[in-house]
Amino acid sequence: MMERKTMNIAVIGIGLIGGSFALAMRSKGVAGRIVGVDNIAGNCKTALEMGLVDEIMSLEDAVECSDLVVISIPVDAIPLVAVKVLNRVREGQVVIDMGSTKEELCDVIALHPNRGRFVATHPMWGTEYSGPQAAVEGAFAGRTVVICQSELSDDDALARVTEIYRLLEMPVKYMDAEEHDLHAAYVSHISHITSFALALTVLEKELEDDHILDLAGGGFESTVRLAKSSPEMWTPIFMQNKYNILDVLREHIHQLQVLRRMIEKDDTESLKAVMRKANGIKRVIK
Amino acid sequence: MMERKTMNIAVIGIGLIGGSFALAMRSKGVAGRIVGVDNIAGNCKTALEMGLVDEIMSLEDAVECSDLVVISIPVDAIPLVAVKVLNRVREGQVVIDMGSTKEELCDVIALHPNRGRFVATHPMWGTEYSGPQAAVEGAFAGRTVVICQSELSDDDALARVTEIYRLLEMPVKYMDAEEHDLHAAYVSHISHITSFALALTVLEKELEDDHILDLAGGGFESTVRLAKSSPEMWTPIFMQNKYNILDVLREHIHQLQVLRRMIEKDDTESLKAVMRKANGIKRVIK
Repeated sequence: MMERKTMNIAVIGIGLIGGSFALAMRSKGVAGRIVGVDNIAGNCKTALEMGLVDEIMSLEDAVECSDLVVISIPVDAIPLVAVKVLNRVREGQVVIDMGSTKEELCDVIALHPNRGRFVATHPMWGTEYSGPQAAVEGAFAGRTVVICQSELSDDDALARVTEIYRLLEMPVKYMDAEEHDLHAAYVSHISHITSFALALTVLEKELEDDHILDLAGGGFESTVRLAKSSPEMWTPIFMQNKYNILDVLREHIHQLQVLRRMIEKDDTESLKAVMRKANGIKRVIK
Repeated sequence: MMERKTMNIAVIGIGLIGGSFALAMRSKGVAGRIVGVDNIAGNCKTALEMGLVDEIMSLEDAVECSDLVVISIPVDAIPLVAVKVLNRVREGQVVIDMGSTKEELCDVIALHPNRGRFVATHPMWGTEYSGPQAAVEGAFAGRTVVICQSELSDDDALARVTEIYRLLEMPVKYMDAEEHDLHAAYVSHISHITSFALALTVLEKELEDDHILDLAGGGFESTVRLAKSSPEMWTPIFMQNKYNILDVLREHIHQLQVLRRMIEKDDTESLKAVMRKANGIKRVIK
C-alpha cells in the first residue's frame, strides 16, 4: 500500500464548517499538522480541547507553515481575509474558502496576482448549529461541493482541491459565481428565511410554549429547524446575495398569497391542482 | 404475567395512519382480528398483502364484529362516517377518529345519542407519504396525542382509549375542539402550506432539476419535505380549518414582508434582532 502524502492545514475560522472539515481531513489520513486561526478566544480553546486543531497561531504564521489554507468564516469577512492570505502565499500553497456566496469574493480577488492559488468552493452541507462544539465527524460525505470560476485557478491547485473533495466523497459541480449565487438563493437561502419567518409567526401567535412542543410532531419541527441558525452567519449571506434573495422572496410571497386566496374562496379544485404541481418536487428530492 | 385481553379492531381507511395504527396494535399484542374497510380496491389488496389487516369487510359488517372502530380517512369524510358508525354501535364498543381537525366533527356528532361511545383523537404523527404501503412500524411512540371534548365521552370509552395510547407510548393532552384546531393551524397546517409554496417557488424559478438536486444539502430538503404530501388529504384539512389558517397565513406573509424590507434596506441590525428572536424557537424545539 502506498503511503498517502499528508499536508499541513491552516483553518481560518474554527466553527461548524472549519471544525468539521478538520475532522474529515484527519479521518481520511491526509492531514499533517492542523493549525487554527480564530479571533474568538473561546473557539480556540474549544477547538484545542476537542482536538480539532493541533495549535493556534496568528493568520500570518498559520499561512506561512501550511500547504492548504481553508477560510471558513462568515461571508462578509471572507473577501478581505482572502486578499490577506493571497498576499502571503508562495508557489505550491493552495487556498480555499467554504462560503455560501461567491460573487463578491470572486470579484474582490479577480485581479490578485496570486489568484491562481485560490479555489472558490461551497460544500453543500451545514446544520442549524454553530461554533467548534457543533463540528461533526463524517459531515460532508455524499453532499455536492460547488467550485466556482475554476478557470481562474492554477491547474495544480484545482487538481489538489478536487482530489481532496474526492477523498471526502463529495461530487464536484462547476459553476460561475453568478450562477452559484442565484441557485443558492433558491435552494438554500430562501429556506432559511421561510424558517425564520415561520418561527416568528408561531412565537408571535402561540403564547404558550407547551402547545408548540406538544403538537410539533405534525411537521412543524422539520420546517422550522433552520430558524435556530446563527444570525451572525446568515445576515451577511442575505446581504451579499440581496438581489437574488429579494427576487425569490417576492415570488415566494406571491405563491403564499395565491394559496391563501384559493383557501379563502373555497377553490378546492385549484388548491388540489397547485398541490399536485408542488408534489413535482418528488422528482428531484427523494 | 397477566395475559392482556385482545380486542377486535375495525380500521376504516387503511392508509398511512390507519395502517401504522394496525401495525402498532399488533406489535403491542393487543389486536385480535383486524378488519379493514376502504373504498379503494388497491388499498384493500395492499393492506391484505402486507398483513396490515386480516380481512376486508363492508363498514356495516366491520362495525358489527369489532370492539374498537378506528376512523382514519380524510377529514372531510370523517363526520358522515362517524355518524354512520355511531348509528350502529352497541354498548361496550368504542369509536375513535384520527383526523387533523376537530371542530366540524365534534359539531356534527354533538347530539348523537351514542356520542358517549366516541373519543375524538389526533395522534401528532405523520409523514409526507400516503396509502397502506406508507405504513410504518413503531410510528407513534413518543408523540403526543390530543383528545378533544373528552367530557362528552363515556368514562369507560375514554379509559379504554387512554389505555391504548399509553400502550403506544403516547403522552395524552386534552383540549376542546376549537383550541385544538387553532393550535394545529399554527404548528402543523401552516408548515404544510409554506412547504407547498416553497416547492412551487423553486419549481417556478429553477428550470433545471439538476441544480435543485445538487444544492439541496443547504437546508432546502427539510423545509420542502412536506410539499410531497397528498393533495387529497390536505385540501379538506385546509378547508375545515379555513379561518384559523387564513389568520396564521396573514401573519406569516407579514413576517416575510418585514424580513424582505429589512434586506432591501440593508438594515442588518434589525435583521439580526429578529433572527435572534426567531432563535427563541430553540426553547421549545430541541
